[in-house]
Amino acid sequence: PTTPCTDFDVAYFHSYAHVGIHEEMIKDRVRTDTYRAAIMQHQSSIEGKVVVDVGCGTGILSIFCAQAGAKRVYAVDASDIAVQASEVVKANNLSDKVIVLHGRVEDVEIDEEVDVIISEWMGYMLLYESMLGSVITARDRWLKRGGLILPSTATLYLAPVTHPDRYGECIDFWRNVYGIDMSAMMSLAKQCAFEEPCVETIMGENVLTWPHVVKHVDCYSIQIEELESITTSFNFKSMMRAPLHGFAFWFDVEFSGPAISTINNHVPSVIASSKNHPMDGFQKKKRANPNETLVLSTAPEDPPTHWQQTLIYFYDPIEVEQDQQIEGSVILSQSKENARFMNIHLEYASGGRSFVKESVMR
Amino acid sequence: PTTPCTDFDVAYFHSYAHVGIHEEMIKDRVRTDTYRAAIMQHQSSIEGKVVVDVGCGTGILSIFCAQAGAKRVYAVDASDIAVQASEVVKANNLSDKVIVLHGRVEDVEIDEEVDVIISEWMGYMLLYESMLGSVITARDRWLKRGGLILPSTATLYLAPVTHPDRYGECIDFWRNVYGIDMSAMMSLAKQCAFEEPCVETIMGENVLTWPHVVKHVDCYSIQIEELESITTSFNFKSMMRAPLHGFAFWFDVEFSGPAISTINNHVPSVIASSKNHPMDGFQKKKRANPNETLVLSTAPEDPPTHWQQTLIYFYDPIEVEQDQQIEGSVILSQSKENARFMNIHLEYASGGRSFVKESVMR
Repeated sequence: PTTPCTDFDVAYFHSYAHVGIHEEMIKDRVRTDTYRAAIMQHQSSIEGKVVVDVGCGTGILSIFCAQAGAKRVYAVDASDIAVQASEVVKANNLSDKVIVLHGRVEDVEIDEEVDVIISEWMGYMLLYESMLGSVITARDRWLKRGGLILPSTATLYLAPVTHPDRYGECIDFWRNVYGIDMSAMMSLAKQCAFEEPCVETIMGENVLTWPHVVKHVDCYSIQIEELESITTSFNFKSMMRAPLHGFAFWFDVEFSGPAISTINNHVPSVIASSKNHPMDGFQKKKRANPNETLVLSTAPEDPPTHWQQTLIYFYDPIEVEQDQQIEGSVILSQSKENARFMNIHLEYASGGRSFVKESVMR
Repeated sequence: PTTPCTDFDVAYFHSYAHVGIHEEMIKDRVRTDTYRAAIMQHQSSIEGKVVVDVGCGTGILSIFCAQAGAKRVYAVDASDIAVQASEVVKANNLSDKVIVLHGRVEDVEIDEEVDVIISEWMGYMLLYESMLGSVITARDRWLKRGGLILPSTATLYLAPVTHPDRYGECIDFWRNVYGIDMSAMMSLAKQCAFEEPCVETIMGENVLTWPHVVKHVDCYSIQIEELESITTSFNFKSMMRAPLHGFAFWFDVEFSGPAISTINNHVPSVIASSKNHPMDGFQKKKRANPNETLVLSTAPEDPPTHWQQTLIYFYDPIEVEQDQQIEGSVILSQSKENARFMNIHLEYASGGRSFVKESVMR
C-alpha cells in the first residue's frame, strides 16, 4: 500500500520545480564534481548496468551515468522539473538510455531489478527534507542483491562552536546604534536571530573540538523507522577558552561500493539494522578512508558547499575554559506539523548550568 | 471614517515585528546618516517643536529629533516593534519627550497640531508597500499650515539597462553544464528568474541612458488618489550599442523645507495637486540642488543602499545600436489581490518590434 502524497509533499515537490534550486545545486562544484568523480570511480559497476537516479532533478547525474556507459538509467522525480529533465535527455540524444519517470519512487513502475541506485538526497543537516526515505523505498523495491548505492554511507556530526562575530553583528550591535543605547532591542534580536536553526557557513576555527557522530547511515541497511527519531548523547571537552555560542551540525557522505561496505561490517541486506552501528555516538578523530573512497564533506574545515552548516545558537553565550566539559543530548525527530520539517530537542550543560533548547527546521 | 485594517495590513505590520528588517535599515548608513544629517540641517525647524514620526520602527529617527531639541515627538507604528521602541525611549530617558503610539496613523489620537512630520516610508521602487498613504494621512490630520515634512519630495526614475553578466550567469549558463547541453532548461530559467521584478544592485555602467522621471511626489501636496495608478510614457535614445536586458527603477528623496518647496512652485497646501507636476515625464539630466538640499539617492551610480534597484528583465535581450530609440509606457497600479502589492504593466518597443510585460511586485 502506497502512502498518500500529502499537501506538504506537494509543496515540497513544487519547490523543486523552480530553476534556482537546481542552479544552486549544479553550481555547487564540490557536490557535482564529487558525484561525477564517484560515478567515474565506479564505472566498472555502472557500465552495461541498470541505474535508478532517485530525485533526478534536471537529470544531470543520470546523464553522467549514461556517459559512464550505463545500459539504462531510470531518472525518477516527482517534481515538475522532470519535464525539463526529459527535454534535456532528448536534446542530448539519450532518450534510448535515460528514461525519465515523473512521479514518486513509491508510485512509478520499473519492470526490472536495478544494479545501481544513485541519489543526491541530502538535505540541510543531512536529514532535513526526509528524502532518504525515497532512497530506501527505491532500494527495497528494485535493487539487486549486491547492487551498488551511491553514496553508500552518510554521517551527521555535531560540535560546539564559538562565533563572536556573528553574535556581535546582530546582538551586541544594539548596544550602541549611532550613539544611542538600543540594548532594549537585544532580547527580541536574540529571539529573531536564534530561535530557529540557521543555515550558514562557519570556519574550522569556529569549532571548539572534534565533532560527535550523531548518526551514521549505511544506505544498504538503514531502515525508515530509524529516521523517525534519532537520539544521541555527547560529551565534549573544549580545546580552548572561548565563549560557546551554540552547536553546529554538518555531514559527509562516502561513495564506497558494497564490497567495501561489507569489509566495514555493513551487511548489504535490507534486513540488517544499523541501529547500533559501532560509529554512532563516537567522536570522530580522523577520517578512515580505505581504498581512496571519495568523500563529499560539508565540514567547516572543508571547502564550502550550498549545504553550509546548520547552527543552533544559544540566546546567551557560555564562557568555557580550556578542557571544560560540555555535555548533553540531542533528539532529532520528524515534526508532527509537517513530516519534512525536523524538531531539534537539545539539552546541554557546562560549568554547572544546564539548558534546554527546542527548535524546528522548517 | 477610518478604513479597516485588512489581513494584508496585519501581515505587513507583522513583518516589521521582526528585528532583521530594522537591523538592515539601520545598518544602511546611506539611509540613516542622511536622515540624521537632514534632521540636523533642519534643527531650527525642529527645536522646541512638535514632531510626528510616521512608522517609527525602533524609534531611531524620533530619538534623533529629540536629540535635535524637539519639544515632543509622537512615534507612531502599527507594528509590534512599537513595544521595543517604547523600551528604547525609556532606556534613553526620553519618555517625557518621545511618546510612542502603537497603532496606525489612521487610528491613533494626537491632541495637538504638529510642526514636523518625519517618515522613512519609501519601499522598493519607491511606492512598493504603499506607506506614503500613511504620511498623507498624518499630514492631513495633524500638520500645521507651513509645517515641515521630511523628506519633502521623492522622485521615481526608470532607465533601460544592459546586464550581460546577470543574463549569462543564470540563462546562458545552461548552454553548457559540465559539458552537457542543458539549454532545454533556458525557457524555465527565464521564467523563474525574470517573470517578476528583481531587487538587486546594478552599477552606473549598466544603465544605457539618462533616466526618465516616472513620478515626482511633492509630500506637501500629493493626494492619495494619485498613487492608485501612475502612467507614464518614455522615449530613450541608447547612448551605446549593447544588448538591452530590461529596465531599472530607482528613486531619490530630498529633504528641503516648505520655503524651498514654494520656490520650486510647490504649494504647501493639501488642496493643490501635483498631478501635472512639470518634472513628470521628463528625463533627468542634472540634479537641481539649491541651498545644498540633502538628497538620499538609490541610483545605480550612487553608493548602494538596502533598497538596491528594482529590475524588470525581458525574457530575451534586444540588441540596440547607439542612438537607437527605446520607447514605451509604464502603468504602476495597486494590485487588486493585495493593496500593498504593485502591478507593473510595461510596454516597450525598439528596432521595429514591440512587447508587453506584466509583472507583480509581491
